[in-house]
Amino acid sequence: MDILTMDREALLAQKARLEAEYAAFKAKGLKLDMSRGKPGSDQLDLSRDMLTVFTGNEDFFDGKTDTRNYGGLEGLMSCRQLFGALLGIPAGNILAGGNSSLTMMYDTLLRLYTFGAAGVLEPWGRQSGLKWLCPAPGYDRHFAITEQLGFEMVTVPMLETGPDMDVVEELIKDPAVKGIWCVPKHSNPQGISCSDETVRRFAALSPAAKDFRIIWDNAYCVHDIGEPVHILNLFEECQKAGTLDQLFIFASTSKFTYPGAGVAMMACSDLNFKWTTDIMGVQAISPDKVNQLRHVRFFGDAAGVYAHMAKHAAILAPKFQSVLDCLSRHLDGTGAGSWITPRGGYFISFDSYPGCAKRINTLCKEAGVVMTGAGATFPKGYDPLDSNLRIAPSLPPLSELNAAMEVFCVCALLAATEKRLSEIG
Amino acid sequence: MDILTMDREALLAQKARLEAEYAAFKAKGLKLDMSRGKPGSDQLDLSRDMLTVFTGNEDFFDGKTDTRNYGGLEGLMSCRQLFGALLGIPAGNILAGGNSSLTMMYDTLLRLYTFGAAGVLEPWGRQSGLKWLCPAPGYDRHFAITEQLGFEMVTVPMLETGPDMDVVEELIKDPAVKGIWCVPKHSNPQGISCSDETVRRFAALSPAAKDFRIIWDNAYCVHDIGEPVHILNLFEECQKAGTLDQLFIFASTSKFTYPGAGVAMMACSDLNFKWTTDIMGVQAISPDKVNQLRHVRFFGDAAGVYAHMAKHAAILAPKFQSVLDCLSRHLDGTGAGSWITPRGGYFISFDSYPGCAKRINTLCKEAGVVMTGAGATFPKGYDPLDSNLRIAPSLPPLSELNAAMEVFCVCALLAATEKRLSEIG
Repeated sequence: MDILTMDREALLAQKARLEAEYAAFKAKGLKLDMSRGKPGSDQLDLSRDMLTVFTGNEDFFDGKTDTRNYGGLEGLMSCRQLFGALLGIPAGNILAGGNSSLTMMYDTLLRLYTFGAAGVLEPWGRQSGLKWLCPAPGYDRHFAITEQLGFEMVTVPMLETGPDMDVVEELIKDPAVKGIWCVPKHSNPQGISCSDETVRRFAALSPAAKDFRIIWDNAYCVHDIGEPVHILNLFEECQKAGTLDQLFIFASTSKFTYPGAGVAMMACSDLNFKWTTDIMGVQAISPDKVNQLRHVRFFGDAAGVYAHMAKHAAILAPKFQSVLDCLSRHLDGTGAGSWITPRGGYFISFDSYPGCAKRINTLCKEAGVVMTGAGATFPKGYDPLDSNLRIAPSLPPLSELNAAMEVFCVCALLAATEKRLSEIG
Repeated sequence: MDILTMDREALLAQKARLEAEYAAFKAKGLKLDMSRGKPGSDQLDLSRDMLTVFTGNEDFFDGKTDTRNYGGLEGLMSCRQLFGALLGIPAGNILAGGNSSLTMMYDTLLRLYTFGAAGVLEPWGRQSGLKWLCPAPGYDRHFAITEQLGFEMVTVPMLETGPDMDVVEELIKDPAVKGIWCVPKHSNPQGISCSDETVRRFAALSPAAKDFRIIWDNAYCVHDIGEPVHILNLFEECQKAGTLDQLFIFASTSKFTYPGAGVAMMACSDLNFKWTTDIMGVQAISPDKVNQLRHVRFFGDAAGVYAHMAKHAAILAPKFQSVLDCLSRHLDGTGAGSWITPRGGYFISFDSYPGCAKRINTLCKEAGVVMTGAGATFPKGYDPLDSNLRIAPSLPPLSELNAAMEVFCVCALLAATEKRLSEIG
């Protein structure tokens, strides 16, 4: 029954029933974690053979390059080519880096902040009133970067087609707006992928700020579960539109192989590539080319990556299905919240009855179920509706996930019932 | 015979003889490289077994930590302990990082520049007239960092005991002086190690700038050739002197294992550790812990590192000896230059007859021998005496090194003879 149509008596009865269920869960002393998008150990085990691709000293050569030694700031060509094949971007416009695309994004923003955009502009750090566009719900670590650099973060609503481009096109008329975050495919946390029109509108953006930059974090580029989702290639669209200098694209193998020991990449225009390597040449000599070659040898080619990602999908699909089934079973028609069925990525986004997210979080925590903090999906942790929660199903084994979701659903319905009772007085 | 005591006729005869020798070398079409401190492939081969320390998925655990997954910003504890044992620093004050100590230094300076030193000081980037102390001859990549950040670089002479501390103690009375570079052991390029007194005077520094920092790049901490050199532990000396917040120490395994795929580390006070991880927590999730564990498993303990470094020394010793022998054989008593016999590290520093370094460089290059550029060992590439040249004997095989040094010695003597002739008119 829907809490919006229930009277006080019915709500009180439901509350009593849920409190009893909740108390029973609490008594179990559970310790379950759905907080971060970490792959499970069964997923990590899939890449076991990557660690033994090198058997002799001669294996370390990639053509004439001895990957063990210094040199090659832009990364190993064979690795850049592999990323290029996956993303439809020329290898010459790709930098293969260390183990973290987050670090590559951070460093790119810090370069813009400290040294100014390519074309001798005033560094962001010497300008005042900086603003940044944050489609939300979004990724907390993105928001943390622009917060640390002192940006005023302006929230942009997410639609089924990606960020609300009407809003974006309006906001970029302000020259203080310097950029926008976007996870274009299987967005974190909603699993939304940008429509072709959204991608084209990104490519067509004509911001007032000449040092405006799109940070296109294609974190889940080949992380489909079930039928693959194809998004339009923003690199190509920007080339056509003549706006390529506004774009930085990122991806990594963190969720192909090992989150802590993968290879990250960045793609950009020739101008930005030179600007990046000129500045970065003082920061670094070369990335870990041995690890890059290890990945290239393990995958072979793009087809090898797709085959490997299918194994991840086979592990993740039942976990996602389990979460969705549990939500349906317990919450369909209750008015306690809504959710989106993702076609890939690492999260299921849940929107509770307004004003309940923090309460659900607390209830879960007290019953031993750790969730991502309420509000984390919004800039500065402030969710104006106190409604969005991010469910990360990948890390716990299926049995633990089921147990955690049972708790979550009781907490979500209990919080909504409490809230509704307080509203009707 | 010494060029200073030779008359014009003798110098002309010597010049003619050397030009003939030089022409003969040139005709050989040599292609030799003594430009960078890269280990030779025989040195890289020593670490072959590190690549196969993992044989099963259970090997990736360091205690309860699954090194493959996210987490552990400060690096793997077992790796921090290994560095701690080598350097005599508590593991809790050590951050184990990625593959580059240069990057860790750069990022540390950029944090000071952008966010200000621990204790809520004005960031360097918002102060004007920044100055930095550069003991020279020194490491070109150090100087490049402070140059990129806009520091005026003040050269400090190198003595046999390390940087001239009389000069340092005087210069730090200027509050615009924000720090100093130092390679305390087997310095790049001279192979000079700091005396106990020098280390104690570093610890006792009382600069006018409260955000003054010592960047102690202990790049060659266990890179002895022959009898080991022991330098005093600056971390401990600073603790005693109450100046630990002024100090950042760096090292890496780049020249234990692989230059491109080693593990770097940074050590600092508790205050600076918290300051670093607070800021860095936005830039990164964790370093490559798999590679850190790979190193820990390969070495086992500090004794394992020393045993491994002895193998490097056995390869490097004959190369260094060959360079020194060649210099002695051709240049002793000629007045064409002087050099220091290092007890470790990667370089031999040569001081030519004043005003000859660029000329020697050009002559070598035209005969197919690539050296580090003249002036590279000074800030902004400006050697006031045009005299210092860095010889890097590690990369070429011994036979090539001998050939290259024969050319070098002829060039050094020829340039000095030419110079002397122009002086006596």
